[in-house]
Amino acid sequence: MNNSIIPETLKKVVEEISQLPGYGEKSAQRLAVNILNIPRGEALKLIKTFMEMLEKIHPCRQCGIYTEEELCPVCRDENRDKTIICVVEESFDAFAIERTGKYNGLYHVIGGRLSPLEEITPEDLNIESLLKRVEENPVKEVILATNPTVEGEATASYIHNLLKNKKIIVSRIGYGLPFGAVLENADDFTLSKALEHKTPI
Amino acid sequence: MNNSIIPETLKKVVEEISQLPGYGEKSAQRLAVNILNIPRGEALKLIKTFMEMLEKIHPCRQCGIYTEEELCPVCRDENRDKTIICVVEESFDAFAIERTGKYNGLYHVIGGRLSPLEEITPEDLNIESLLKRVEENPVKEVILATNPTVEGEATASYIHNLLKNKKIIVSRIGYGLPFGAVLENADDFTLSKALEHKTPI
Repeated sequence: MNNSIIPETLKKVVEEISQLPGYGEKSAQRLAVNILNIPRGEALKLIKTFMEMLEKIHPCRQCGIYTEEELCPVCRDENRDKTIICVVEESFDAFAIERTGKYNGLYHVIGGRLSPLEEITPEDLNIESLLKRVEENPVKEVILATNPTVEGEATASYIHNLLKNKKIIVSRIGYGLPFGAVLENADDFTLSKALEHKTPI
Repeated sequence: MNNSIIPETLKKVVEEISQLPGYGEKSAQRLAVNILNIPRGEALKLIKTFMEMLEKIHPCRQCGIYTEEELCPVCRDENRDKTIICVVEESFDAFAIERTGKYNGLYHVIGGRLSPLEEITPEDLNIESLLKRVEENPVKEVILATNPTVEGEATASYIHNLLKNKKIIVSRIGYGLPFGAVLENADDFTLSKALEHKTPI
């Protein structure tokens, strides 16, 4: 008459999923049970695809976008404007900006945002490599496209401080995004507008 | 400048996760990227645990609770009252009831709820096996503990109709649960009260 009726491997799965950002015990249980509920063949296929993803995908050597190649398609593309770097928190933010078709520069994925609460400090983000890229390449502009949240703003501000004495334009992605929103979830039109209205800091 | 920069295996993972109930494209992306973001060793461990779960866990031959044995710990337990069956939608509902320590009967997991919208009909649920258990065993009471939602109520009502001519008590789990709530998420006290106040239908 206690938790001991929960199978050990199920407890283990729930515990491991709970560690993922955004997951608690209940949502972890839900995911585990959803996967147990689908036909076993489909579940195994899903797990196999996950495994394949983990084997093949890694960050682009230059910009950090998740890719199956050494360099991502953006960094490989000769037609992209190599003088502009758009700084985003996650690969999916870059994918969202690509969907707008309005941006022709390069990216830099910092891999998160500064967060005192989650103990994420500048050292945990790919900021050093951004500074190195700016120094070693003919970069004219850096667009800070971290999320328009408190933490995203703080991160943009931190990077701006590091870049402001270099002879480049530093812009913040234009509002049009409601404050508190998550960039990845923005519709394409809003995201296009935000890029169009980027303002120098 | 389009979706083509998203790696193929990532697209595949997102597409497969999107098929799970409760997941859309965005939440699937979030899960995929969360798994890519954690250190590769931990991610592989998570995938391995998932695989182990799928290999070991299956529904109990008698009641349908997820277990690693042929019969779940409840069905194996000689001290449980075999004259009462508590009908729940999912294994996790049974786990939640076990946490209260207030129930000493058996369970029957029907594996979901009737839902015309999702095209879930009685044939998709383990209802036939419930009727068989009631007929072949000295069952005196069936407690219908489907969720107190519109669909859970309809499911309870459907099962009640099938059982009402048999010489057994059919009860509905007692309210105390706010209507529209999900049983799995109820706190232990509310769930205890609900069991205590079960009422014959």
